[in-house]
Amino acid sequence: MVNPRKRVLNVKKNKQKNARPKPITPKGFRDYFHDYSKSRSNLINDICKVYELYGFENLETSAIENLDALGKYLPDIDRPNQGVFSWKDEENNWLALRYDLTAPLARFYAQYFNNLPLPYRRYSWGPVWRNEKPGIGRYRQFYQCDADTIGTNSSVSDAEMCIMFCKIFEKIGVKKNKYLINLNNRKILNGILETVGITDSNNYDATLGTSEKVLRSIDKIDRLGFDGVKDLLGKGRRDESGDFTNGANLTNDQIDTIMQFIRLESGDNIETLNQLKNLVSNSLIGKQGINELEEILEYCELAGLFEDRIRINSGIVRGLGYYTGTVFEAELTDKIIGNEGKITEIGSVAGGGRYDDLVKRFTGKMVPATGFSIGIDRLLFALNQMNSGENNKETGPIIVTIMDKKRINDYQKIVTDLRNAGIKSELYLGNPKDLGRQLKYADKRNSRFAVIIGSEEFNKDVVQIKDLELGSKISSQIKTNKEWKNQPAQVEIPRHNLVKYVLNLSK
Amino acid sequence: MVNPRKRVLNVKKNKQKNARPKPITPKGFRDYFHDYSKSRSNLINDICKVYELYGFENLETSAIENLDALGKYLPDIDRPNQGVFSWKDEENNWLALRYDLTAPLARFYAQYFNNLPLPYRRYSWGPVWRNEKPGIGRYRQFYQCDADTIGTNSSVSDAEMCIMFCKIFEKIGVKKNKYLINLNNRKILNGILETVGITDSNNYDATLGTSEKVLRSIDKIDRLGFDGVKDLLGKGRRDESGDFTNGANLTNDQIDTIMQFIRLESGDNIETLNQLKNLVSNSLIGKQGINELEEILEYCELAGLFEDRIRINSGIVRGLGYYTGTVFEAELTDKIIGNEGKITEIGSVAGGGRYDDLVKRFTGKMVPATGFSIGIDRLLFALNQMNSGENNKETGPIIVTIMDKKRINDYQKIVTDLRNAGIKSELYLGNPKDLGRQLKYADKRNSRFAVIIGSEEFNKDVVQIKDLELGSKISSQIKTNKEWKNQPAQVEIPRHNLVKYVLNLSK
Repeated sequence: MVNPRKRVLNVKKNKQKNARPKPITPKGFRDYFHDYSKSRSNLINDICKVYELYGFENLETSAIENLDALGKYLPDIDRPNQGVFSWKDEENNWLALRYDLTAPLARFYAQYFNNLPLPYRRYSWGPVWRNEKPGIGRYRQFYQCDADTIGTNSSVSDAEMCIMFCKIFEKIGVKKNKYLINLNNRKILNGILETVGITDSNNYDATLGTSEKVLRSIDKIDRLGFDGVKDLLGKGRRDESGDFTNGANLTNDQIDTIMQFIRLESGDNIETLNQLKNLVSNSLIGKQGINELEEILEYCELAGLFEDRIRINSGIVRGLGYYTGTVFEAELTDKIIGNEGKITEIGSVAGGGRYDDLVKRFTGKMVPATGFSIGIDRLLFALNQMNSGENNKETGPIIVTIMDKKRINDYQKIVTDLRNAGIKSELYLGNPKDLGRQLKYADKRNSRFAVIIGSEEFNKDVVQIKDLELGSKISSQIKTNKEWKNQPAQVEIPRHNLVKYVLNLSK
Repeated sequence: MVNPRKRVLNVKKNKQKNARPKPITPKGFRDYFHDYSKSRSNLINDICKVYELYGFENLETSAIENLDALGKYLPDIDRPNQGVFSWKDEENNWLALRYDLTAPLARFYAQYFNNLPLPYRRYSWGPVWRNEKPGIGRYRQFYQCDADTIGTNSSVSDAEMCIMFCKIFEKIGVKKNKYLINLNNRKILNGILETVGITDSNNYDATLGTSEKVLRSIDKIDRLGFDGVKDLLGKGRRDESGDFTNGANLTNDQIDTIMQFIRLESGDNIETLNQLKNLVSNSLIGKQGINELEEILEYCELAGLFEDRIRINSGIVRGLGYYTGTVFEAELTDKIIGNEGKITEIGSVAGGGRYDDLVKRFTGKMVPATGFSIGIDRLLFALNQMNSGENNKETGPIIVTIMDKKRINDYQKIVTDLRNAGIKSELYLGNPKDLGRQLKYADKRNSRFAVIIGSEEFNKDVVQIKDLELGSKISSQIKTNKEWKNQPAQVEIPRHNLVKYVLNLSK
């Protein structure tokens, strides 16, 4: 028999348990600690400075948009219209969190174009949200930093994107031989499809026309390799799990030509251009794509950027349905230890291209546009891995410890002096019952110095300064107590010299 | 009879109309243009620098939280548990956008306290969202910038908040006589309630106990004045629309004492303290509140801050149920033209206090905490109004205009040279059919200079530089054509001198 008293206790316990919310971030979200968010801010600042140098101005749209304004152009092409956090407001309208910065830009431009300079160059940065399954290193909130030019067909604007990207890498310290801008043009692929008899290309609204299927197949090249793509262009492909994906059902001849196109590999842009010219043959749209490529490369060369940094790569098609011409991807070529612990190439950290139809959704009028998006968290992860030797941890404040609780005013006065001199510092505000606890706190804050003043020091009008950095270096080398006592990590100086002393050592 | 053809046309028209989303921001949201978002970033940067000087480190929580983690502590006390944007995820959990930065901090601290330094000092900034009725100047997304210290009872931490606030005003250029930190302590009010026989004070969970009603009534002082508050403490109050709000039903004696408390006005902190001591009489909790006030004022005075800047104001209670002791509000005392066009005092731009029970919701353990929140958009609005004489518009890039479309490479080369020298600049990328259109564009970008080079200039290896700022100044004064021709707003210089010339003039 159940003890009734025990039962009551259990009910109480459960009730109490239910009453307390769990302190956890929702699945797929994370908190960003000091060093992370500071590095990210610095990275974004550096990038935006380049954008401004190139004449771009800032725009921040609100995080929330009307769902219909965002459209169905989610980058994950396998699941259009999904992946967005959305809800109904009290007036039954669907609201949604932006999933990128381009869709809000199209809405913004359609809303304000009468008052905007034309062309309109804007940069934007901020978090975006995706209602997708989270995974290792894949979060449902992440930062993007974009630049776009709206209202011009000029190839100069596409070239500028590529050039700007090289300048960004330069600015954030990525060496010349560690990155590559991959360049391609959708029109060339469309031209090739035309030559093999697939003519629904350029049809933006054909959600799953043959050319769209070809595009999606090619876009999987990184994951499936050439053989996988070839299967998808043909009858289809069975993956490891046994699932079968239907293919585009092209003929062998069609497949051969397309495979020839995406297999094109040459470090020499002129050589690649010649091969492409052969492939597109007499297709007008194909020739146009090649012309645009040539123009862009010419402007890049004028800016001193050649194929060691900006290279034609016909395997880059970029999945998004909305690209209409030039596409580019910025790639870091270094190898790092990836999220799963395996050594991998970093790969693409940014991408974009020309999308001439996005504003049309709102206005019915075609508006040319080009731009790119940098995946900030991905780039930051890669940079941290590349610079793993360096210590990114910011130095914490100076901790003024408390030896005599009755003299808090004196301690606080010292903190005030330090702060007035612009030195990050604070009074230890926890329970000051022993010095060890206070020094541990200083360690946890990554402080360089702790200031120690007991009654003896107050009487002599001096302070002890403990150099925690030097201290931890020395402590691993010191053997005897005597050495410890004489070690230079703790020094006594006149109290009025404190500020000067710290400023000198912090230089 | 309806013309059937016409009907078909109408259907078509409607269908087409429905197919196009409207390019509008959702109700209560807005886009932030360059000058606004840049000023806001600068303001936040300045504030965070002060936070760091005081030993605070950055934390950014994700925008989305589990709804139950946010709790019902919305600042708008008349509608607890409302005002949050929330939705169910695919696993039927309620998610929500944060409505402030304090609730996520409590969740974060409860989640990570084992690994955090104690006390934990953190600052945070970012947008928050409120599902409230928007109004003039009231948006559903706005920025906050907070500092909090968790894990210490020390009055030094409360004093630091007040001191830090003065330093922030100093840093952002608000003069000494234009701001005031109003200081009070909830315990004093609780003590006074105790002396008049209302003893449910300190009871955090009493959602609508008598003391809670008193608190809410006092909090309406700015809107309703003393008489309104008096009515609410008594039987109730009928507003202009005829609606009746029930009162707290206190006796006349009780009301008199409370009114005496909130009417206390003295520019002299010692004088105010004496009056408060009389009012709390023998109440222990009241005396404790007064002690805390005295300690805080002492620390502020040590930092050189007296009642001209930090002043006891017994009318400040701050509505939020969760404050347990010290409360403070930072006020700008200048008069500005408000949102409705009327001249008003700016009033409170930030506020906070001690909230010792917020982490307890998660852990069951009381954790002392103190902090404040700055309403960034409100502060920015006030600063812009106060500095209305100054021009906040950032200077745009130099525009290199196009006179000869065939020489785009030459023009682009000039832009490259300017950018390499760190000068914001761009090639005009619109349709260059006439110079007027290009200069209009430069005007719209708020550019200082336009560079003009026609075939004559190319032949002579010179460039024309048009000083648009000077030009618009002059054009309002010039009378004859001759004067116009000789005006100094446009000069010709050797092409190789361009960078040097611009750098000199931009100094």
